[in-house]
Amino acid sequence: PQQLLSEPSREAPRARPYRVSTADRSVRKGVIAHSLEDLLHKVRDTLMLADKPFILVLEEDGTTVETEDYFQALAKNTVFMVLQKGQKWQPASEQGSRYQP
Amino acid sequence: PQQLLSEPSREAPRARPYRVSTADRSVRKGVIAHSLEDLLHKVRDTLMLADKPFILVLEEDGTTVETEDYFQALAKNTVFMVLQKGQKWQPASEQGSRYQP
Repeated sequence: PQQLLSEPSREAPRARPYRVSTADRSVRKGVIAHSLEDLLHKVRDTLMLADKPFILVLEEDGTTVETEDYFQALAKNTVFMVLQKGQKWQPASEQGSRYQP
Repeated sequence: PQQLLSEPSREAPRARPYRVSTADRSVRKGVIAHSLEDLLHKVRDTLMLADKPFILVLEEDGTTVETEDYFQALAKNTVFMVLQKGQKWQPASEQGSRYQP
C-alpha cells in the first residue's frame, strides 16, 4: 500500500524556528527548538542569563507560555519575550515612546 | 464511494489553544483545551483559584461564555477573562489609564 509522504510524527515534534526578545526589545535572536524545555535552555544560553530565573511570554500580548502542549500549538517564528524577576511585559508602542525627546 | 479527505470529527473536538487573563489583566496565560469543562479545570489550576467560584467572559467585551456549543464556536486563541466574586469586566483602555501619571 502507498504511504503518505508527509505523515506527521506525533512522538518527536520537529525542531522549529522561533524568535526571542529581551524585555526591553533591544535584543532579538533566532533559535531552533523542538520543545519548550529545549527553547528554555537555548534562551538561557543565547541571552546569557546564567542561572537567573525567567519566564517566556508572547511578545505580542504578554501571554505566559508554560506548558509543552501550548508551546506545540504555537506557530513557527512565534516571537517570545524573556521576563526576568521584576520585569513586566509592555506593549511595543509604549516602549517606543521612550525614544522620543 | 469516494471519501472526504478532511471529514470533521464531531465526537471528539480537537484541543485548541486559548488565552486566559485575570480580571485586572496583570496575568495572561496560554492553555490548551478541548472543551469548556476542560478549560475551566485548566484555568482553575493555572491561575491557582483553588475552589473559589468564577466565570469566564470574553476579554474583548465581557460576553459570558457558559455553554459548550458557544465555546466550540469560538476561534482558537480567543482571549478569556476570569471573573471571581465581586469582579467586573472593564474595557482594556480604562485599565490602561493606570499606567499614566
